[in-house]
Amino acid sequence: MKKNVLIIIILLTSITLNAQNQKNEIKKIYDEALTNGESYSLLEYLSLKIGNRLSGSPQAAAAVEYTRERMEAFGFDNVYLQEVMVPHWIRGKKEVGRILNSASFGSKELNVTALGNSVGTGANGILAEVIEVQNFDQLDLLGKENIQGKIVFYNRPMDPRNINTHKSYSQANDQRVQGASKAAQYGAVGVISRSLTLAIDDFPHTGSLQYEEKVPKIPAVAVSTLGAEILSREIKKSNGLKFYMETHCEMLPDVLSYNVIGEVKGSEFPDEYIIVGGHLDSWDVGDGTHDDGAGCVQSIEAIRIFITLGIRPKRTIRVVLFMNEENGLRGGNEYARVAKEKGERHIAALESDSGGFTPQGFSIQGTDDAFSIILGWGDLFIPYDLRKFVQGAGEADIDPLKDQGTTLIGFIPDSQRYFDYHHSEADTFEKVNKRELELGAAAMASLIYLIDQNGLQSKE
Amino acid sequence: MKKNVLIIIILLTSITLNAQNQKNEIKKIYDEALTNGESYSLLEYLSLKIGNRLSGSPQAAAAVEYTRERMEAFGFDNVYLQEVMVPHWIRGKKEVGRILNSASFGSKELNVTALGNSVGTGANGILAEVIEVQNFDQLDLLGKENIQGKIVFYNRPMDPRNINTHKSYSQANDQRVQGASKAAQYGAVGVISRSLTLAIDDFPHTGSLQYEEKVPKIPAVAVSTLGAEILSREIKKSNGLKFYMETHCEMLPDVLSYNVIGEVKGSEFPDEYIIVGGHLDSWDVGDGTHDDGAGCVQSIEAIRIFITLGIRPKRTIRVVLFMNEENGLRGGNEYARVAKEKGERHIAALESDSGGFTPQGFSIQGTDDAFSIILGWGDLFIPYDLRKFVQGAGEADIDPLKDQGTTLIGFIPDSQRYFDYHHSEADTFEKVNKRELELGAAAMASLIYLIDQNGLQSKE
Repeated sequence: MKKNVLIIIILLTSITLNAQNQKNEIKKIYDEALTNGESYSLLEYLSLKIGNRLSGSPQAAAAVEYTRERMEAFGFDNVYLQEVMVPHWIRGKKEVGRILNSASFGSKELNVTALGNSVGTGANGILAEVIEVQNFDQLDLLGKENIQGKIVFYNRPMDPRNINTHKSYSQANDQRVQGASKAAQYGAVGVISRSLTLAIDDFPHTGSLQYEEKVPKIPAVAVSTLGAEILSREIKKSNGLKFYMETHCEMLPDVLSYNVIGEVKGSEFPDEYIIVGGHLDSWDVGDGTHDDGAGCVQSIEAIRIFITLGIRPKRTIRVVLFMNEENGLRGGNEYARVAKEKGERHIAALESDSGGFTPQGFSIQGTDDAFSIILGWGDLFIPYDLRKFVQGAGEADIDPLKDQGTTLIGFIPDSQRYFDYHHSEADTFEKVNKRELELGAAAMASLIYLIDQNGLQSKE
Repeated sequence: MKKNVLIIIILLTSITLNAQNQKNEIKKIYDEALTNGESYSLLEYLSLKIGNRLSGSPQAAAAVEYTRERMEAFGFDNVYLQEVMVPHWIRGKKEVGRILNSASFGSKELNVTALGNSVGTGANGILAEVIEVQNFDQLDLLGKENIQGKIVFYNRPMDPRNINTHKSYSQANDQRVQGASKAAQYGAVGVISRSLTLAIDDFPHTGSLQYEEKVPKIPAVAVSTLGAEILSREIKKSNGLKFYMETHCEMLPDVLSYNVIGEVKGSEFPDEYIIVGGHLDSWDVGDGTHDDGAGCVQSIEAIRIFITLGIRPKRTIRVVLFMNEENGLRGGNEYARVAKEKGERHIAALESDSGGFTPQGFSIQGTDDAFSIILGWGDLFIPYDLRKFVQGAGEADIDPLKDQGTTLIGFIPDSQRYFDYHHSEADTFEKVNKRELELGAAAMASLIYLIDQNGLQSKE
């Protein structure tokens, strides 16, 4: 009996010491990120020296080389490139969007951007009557007799009432993603989609569309929200309003690119993997600072902090910078395929792809057991204002790991400003705040640290 | 027995219905703020049409008139001005700050701003050797023999390791507030203070100093953090580095100004008051958007939402826009004095004075009972990402109500960007995000709503 009490006391003391130690390590991680952080200068280089990085572009290749070199310089154990064939879509010459016969002002240019993966109109453009709908139900009601030969204008705004702007985005992006093929089924010749942002301004926001097979591929553009409001008003005022659109984009053959991987070997369980990443490609507008330069540099920074502080992980930790999240997800798919092929056991994957804003917490997709273990660390995060731990989806690049039993974790920063910038010329370096970015890196490093130290399975 | 059970069931049903009703009302408040919100356009006017609003300035008077008129237009029951005499400090001609004999580059202008309430140097300026210290202990060690006739340069940076930037500010602002008199005690002729911001940039940040009685008043300026780094480096490099400072500020006699008060009468307890406010004055640089135009428009908006939604409060709710928080706190003191004189029972006072950023929660200074009642509403706030309810100070303007038993509540928005702008030319309208501002107004309205409906005393 006395022996049991002693064992319990030793165990409890050890747990308490362990908890105290982990608390201290997290404090060190935050101090390092906030005083000697490298994330901001990494992002400055990626955004300002390299610029936007669409799959297949020279800038994407430069970003691969830059991040590989940086991880080597930071002393990662092993840095390598994983080959992946990516789509090679190019925008070509600047787009034209023009209202032709408005009752108010006659002709007027609107700011438009071709949607990613869209076919172009060719040099002669498309000139047709434009018809406005809010959703696919309205499209179905209008039918072929009203749509044939016209340009369809999708104008359903993102709902401002959701607190989480990503929810509003996911409720509205069917227009951009599926709108072209839906309209083409009824004989439309082109599509204009309202930009997916809650701001009313003159930046058009691009993003990928998906063509359905066996449906004619018609060209599609996004118009700025300000332009959408003008277009909608003029359609109502003018009889048979005509629109001219001209885009020069095209899809070229796939090209070779890479996921960039840097790892630090585990000291106890080297065959268990924890990955942390973002996507290195971006759209070809702005400089891809928040989407997703931020996630890439935070991931590198998280592990640089481990190395600098001498934290030797028990498990192997990999930074994975995925290629081609934006218009193909080839990098994410290839990474998961290879992991499965090699039988690598991935216990957790964390991705930052919601911008470099003040961290709020994490979204966790895994077993109830894994979720409750992470919830149990909640007190360790309160001093850092991380209070939002919810069950929910991870992020796109890590999703393909789901069926390998990996716990998927999405980093949750404040979402209010994200769609002001997302996929537009407004996503530029000066929109990131140094401390907000650094706090995100520290939050990610801290969670990776706890997963590495404690695992994600309760001991019996 | 059966009767008791029935009573309990009725009570529980009523509590549940009440909770459901309050949940619904909060949803309506948020929807109104995010879809038909007025806070952003109010702030646009205050910032862009009126501009910065130092106590005693014509712009401060214009802001009084504008906000009075707006509250009347929104249908407040009673809108009035409360007289308050305020200090009238003026900056005069643009300041000059110049390194004179650097070993690196000879002469160089640095961006400086006179500290509020400071005396000026006069047209001839001050030219003296500059000596750097980090804190008052170093000053004491140096003593009169090393300080007499010199300019003291306080260069202790804000600590980047605190997550809450207000903590770093309060740890560093003794240099700005008391630095001049401390240095004057040892015979210094002028003071340069490192700007209170975590950013390294070229904006000098002003703010008030306080002169001690019976100590000579010497002129003081703030230098930008970039300038501070240069100055510090050159002091180390150069023997007896000299600095020239020229400021034209002066303190004129007090002038008449006003707190602006708008109220909605309580239907059940009209003699119980709940106030919500911000301060209408600002520094005379930038346009006072975050400090504290944001708090003023959020307070007006909170009660406009009540009126628009037909929420009739039980208690009397007052919007109070305080004058002179920045360099005297006369408005806050006068409001509390009058409230006491009239015997008005103020059960709660909420102030927003930490910027119009994404809300995180509230800081509560009151009885444990009041605090636990507010904590009890926590679940109602989780859908709105308000998770931080802490015991702590309110804000400056409401602090004088403390000894009347009022529960003081400070609105807590994200603090990361606040000091990038605070008291500088960088505090301008384009730095506010519409949704972040609106979410703050909705958070404040929701808390006021719950306090009004439920009170802040547990029912025995």
